Amino acid sequence: MFDVDVVVVGGGLAGLSAARKLVAAGKTAIVLEARDRVAGRNMGGFLSNGVPVEMGGQWVGPTQDAVLGLIEELGLETFHSFDQGEALTMFDGNLVRYSDRTFGLPPESAVEVGRLWDQLEDLASTVAIGEPWETKGAHDLDRQTLDSWLVSHTEDSLARRFFRILVPALFSAESPELSLLHFLFYVKSGTSLDSLMNTTGGAQERRVVGGTHLISERMAEALGNAVRLNSVVRTIHQNGTGVVVEYEGGSVTAQHVIVAIPQTLAGRIRYSPPLPALRDGLTQQMPAGAVIKFHIGYDTPFWREDGLNGSVWSFDDAFNVVLDNSPNDGSCGVLVGFLEGSHARTASLMGAEERRGLVIEALVKYFGEKAADPFDIVEQDWTAEEFTRGCYGGRLGAGAWTQYGKALAAPVDRIHWAGAETSSIWNGYMDGAIRSGLRAADEILHTTLN
Amino acid sequence: MFDVDVVVVGGGLAGLSAARKLVAAGKTAIVLEARDRVAGRNMGGFLSNGVPVEMGGQWVGPTQDAVLGLIEELGLETFHSFDQGEALTMFDGNLVRYSDRTFGLPPESAVEVGRLWDQLEDLASTVAIGEPWETKGAHDLDRQTLDSWLVSHTEDSLARRFFRILVPALFSAESPELSLLHFLFYVKSGTSLDSLMNTTGGAQERRVVGGTHLISERMAEALGNAVRLNSVVRTIHQNGTGVVVEYEGGSVTAQHVIVAIPQTLAGRIRYSPPLPALRDGLTQQMPAGAVIKFHIGYDTPFWREDGLNGSVWSFDDAFNVVLDNSPNDGSCGVLVGFLEGSHARTASLMGAEERRGLVIEALVKYFGEKAADPFDIVEQDWTAEEFTRGCYGGRLGAGAWTQYGKALAAPVDRIHWAGAETSSIWNGYMDGAIRSGLRAADEILHTTLN
Repeated sequence: MFDVDVVVVGGGLAGLSAARKLVAAGKTAIVLEARDRVAGRNMGGFLSNGVPVEMGGQWVGPTQDAVLGLIEELGLETFHSFDQGEALTMFDGNLVRYSDRTFGLPPESAVEVGRLWDQLEDLASTVAIGEPWETKGAHDLDRQTLDSWLVSHTEDSLARRFFRILVPALFSAESPELSLLHFLFYVKSGTSLDSLMNTTGGAQERRVVGGTHLISERMAEALGNAVRLNSVVRTIHQNGTGVVVEYEGGSVTAQHVIVAIPQTLAGRIRYSPPLPALRDGLTQQMPAGAVIKFHIGYDTPFWREDGLNGSVWSFDDAFNVVLDNSPNDGSCGVLVGFLEGSHARTASLMGAEERRGLVIEALVKYFGEKAADPFDIVEQDWTAEEFTRGCYGGRLGAGAWTQYGKALAAPVDRIHWAGAETSSIWNGYMDGAIRSGLRAADEILHTTLN
Repeated sequence: MFDVDVVVVGGGLAGLSAARKLVAAGKTAIVLEARDRVAGRNMGGFLSNGVPVEMGGQWVGPTQDAVLGLIEELGLETFHSFDQGEALTMFDGNLVRYSDRTFGLPPESAVEVGRLWDQLEDLASTVAIGEPWETKGAHDLDRQTLDSWLVSHTEDSLARRFFRILVPALFSAESPELSLLHFLFYVKSGTSLDSLMNTTGGAQERRVVGGTHLISERMAEALGNAVRLNSVVRTIHQNGTGVVVEYEGGSVTAQHVIVAIPQTLAGRIRYSPPLPALRDGLTQQMPAGAVIKFHIGYDTPFWREDGLNGSVWSFDDAFNVVLDNSPNDGSCGVLVGFLEGSHARTASLMGAEERRGLVIEALVKYFGEKAADPFDIVEQDWTAEEFTRGCYGGRLGAGAWTQYGKALAAPVDRIHWAGAETSSIWNGYMDGAIRSGLRAADEILHTTLN
């Protein structure tokens, strides 16, 4: 009667995990992917010397059991990100080395950052993680932006600036662009602010040998011709018995559909009958952040010889978050860095040469003249990608969680929602994406709508 | 070579005004309208006694020269909204009559409201209206939500609550959902807060005989078969010489296209090549407000006999903004009122009977038992409309104007943007919609891209 049991829209980690689980349970599925590749916000790339680099999401870490388990199941391996040595902070023209929790800040500001950090951790611990709108004091937490909270909680301008860099480093968005509640939810979702920010013991601890896109590619290989590339879904019809999913070039019928793409893209599909207003209102205002990611390749990881771990945090520069991303065998040196939030928006209007000049100029400030001559630079602007339209993920601004949050993951009859932003555990991360796909598959395996 | 010179997407005031101007200048145009009617957020309705009522935008006022001029050109007439007598304010169970600038508030709170009002007017006067991001101190004005500004500028809880009603009354959105800069821009765009809020001398001064939808209908009649209803535009292609606009059922080629629909809908069209990231980022986060509009019909405007003008402002109730909307001849009594912002979202989940019960209960509190027995109630939920998805209009939250504002009205080669939200004069109003259509038509008439 139907072509398949379930259609999955989107061949990223969420969609492929869902399809894999459904097929394992004996269901038939088709994954419709708009691009000519799977893996969504994971993408493989290479430096000119053949060393693979991750153009999108790249790190995994402890407590991310869904992604760690899947990596193992698929026969992939991880290795520890390099973080031995001192980190650098740059502010007001000062370049400071540090290896403690001061972030290289003057004592007074370091103490203030620590105080705010602890307050945010304490507040985050109160969030009702599955239902943030039910958090005690949710309306007050949701009324204010993270930036307003900062302004009303510290007079220390360096401490404010610190968090105004930390926020784009996590969200690729600026501190006024998310509610305090969203920030707290996200922190708790990833265990703690420590957990989100750390390399060893945190979200940046490990990398996947060959690149994270291999996780999706291995899942897609096993699904075989159930995965259809170059299939841009435009319309989803549903009625009492099933769904018809129309893409450019054809259509598929099924009992259920899982929409496993970012909310801001899910809102561009036409639904018949139209979605409930609350769901539509949500997709009207869950924008993605803006980020341009760079890998800069050098003959050697020369900063290590200076006792540096390659990590930089700059208050002065647009290219202000840098980490060592060299291959595990140290056969060459690679720095990875980001233009995030407003810096990405400004830089996306530049030409590629100008943008690269900006990157190199910053690296020379941080690491000296040796940084001036990389053998290659590669970049990826995620806002320019029609089928992503921003990274790292979608966020909710002031007032949105308490008014629209209920619609984020709730099925609309035969339409189920997946994607990293719908997960309450490791929201916005690869781990959360996989969990969301498994949860959506579970909804269908246990549905009463047949 | 092309089917027409210009395709216009959307048959509301903006699109029809644009097409009308282009045709008058000797161009050929086709207007593609998704619905089976023109007029967009204007829509005619009737009470059961045959009296016409406006289901969408309804008022016009001084300085709205574009709409007033068009009304006259089209042979339509206006009449003065009824506002003779005392208004009511309800707070903490008190029902207060007033006819001055106190809004019925206790003296201390009335003074505080006046102080904040004046501060907001002063701040609004500083906005660079055509380029709000160039306003002096734009980043600080844009960093904060209107709500955060209120919290940091007054301790008076009644004054805060007053503005937390005023904001939904203007935007159908809550005070945390827009930046201070957006509020100030909007105020200046409509001249002043006085101008936005007043009946006589302000934006609610006059109504159109027969209903505002007649403006669009008359324009559409004159355009004849250039207006195509039931044409849902899905894809816009452009290249160096022209555009192809694909709708469900066909396609049209032209030299230029004007997209004259709300931003949140414009973002759902697929563009080839994809739009620049800045424009796409804007449409990801310019959501519409939520409003359910009610007309309640009585045999007579009985409140007038009590010396009341029918205007209510309630701090206690969901149905909290009410006005006299009786026909000009007073042949029956009509109250118009709104569920706005979070109240609309909550009420949209109720059944129609429950929602009407809530409305009547509030009206009986305001006007007594006579309000309990209307001969008819009609309602319109604009968030449920697939081809509007919210009213009164789109807004920008904290951080958006300064980062994305430039993309609001800037053409993307052969694609031009119109709609009430793109106007710097009377943004969000019928007048602004018409101005935006004329401006987009002008862009094409003076383009160098031929």
